Amino acid sequence: MKRSSKSNWSGDLAHGRGYLSTESLTLNKARYSFDSRFAEAEGTNPEELLAAAHAGCFTIGLVFALSQAKYVAGELETTAEVNVDMAKGGITDIELTLNASMIEGLSQQAFTKIAMATKENCLISKALAGLKISLVINYN
Amino acid sequence: MKRSSKSNWSGDLAHGRGYLSTESLTLNKARYSFDSRFAEAEGTNPEELLAAAHAGCFTIGLVFALSQAKYVAGELETTAEVNVDMAKGGITDIELTLNASMIEGLSQQAFTKIAMATKENCLISKALAGLKISLVINYN
Repeated sequence: MKRSSKSNWSGDLAHGRGYLSTESLTLNKARYSFDSRFAEAEGTNPEELLAAAHAGCFTIGLVFALSQAKYVAGELETTAEVNVDMAKGGITDIELTLNASMIEGLSQQAFTKIAMATKENCLISKALAGLKISLVINYN
Repeated sequence: MKRSSKSNWSGDLAHGRGYLSTESLTLNKARYSFDSRFAEAEGTNPEELLAAAHAGCFTIGLVFALSQAKYVAGELETTAEVNVDMAKGGITDIELTLNASMIEGLSQQAFTKIAMATKENCLISKALAGLKISLVINYN
């Protein structure tokens, strides 16, 4: 399976502008720039897209792992925070925070075990071998 | 610097549905599902978002590296293809393909050297320590 996206850029660093498009066109010429990456200008940036990829991968991976254990996921909300520290060479770590509804018949301890294994094994986590990844779970 | 995104999911694997939102709201409750990830259903998936993050990071990194060398980037177009092979444990590699206009006063050889260094050093490449990353450059 192959999944692809495209970036176009024109011009210099300070005034140039880039566009990002994904194969599905969920992103369709989405704007990004130096200032949307390293300052607070409008537009997207690679780090929040990495965060979206990781949050999505972890969440669907957890739904899959729960289904393998014969449970149906309730409501799940995962936030992925990508921390960047240029003094430490760039992206240092990702913090995942999961808000999960309890599932009948599944203890918090057993749920936590499945979620921790998912954090290790989800495809994006494995690709991100250069980063520390943490997970905090809040049960609703 | 911290960049974040959120994933919400409700329901089982086959019929459940997820939504992805980035901090900038460039993604604003974008749909994804098991079938948009592993089949061809409508919606986004973590792998194309990873591809977008990588294409964007590499491209802006190259613009930065060229500016450090006192050159202004012309037209750049980068495609990032994320290859997934579940028999080999998931995401195996990313292929970057760059279409670049020639820059006056900068040889293809010197450009290639800057681009190859960017492939190694861009923030997303460094985070993706688990993957092989290749780069092909086409000069316009």
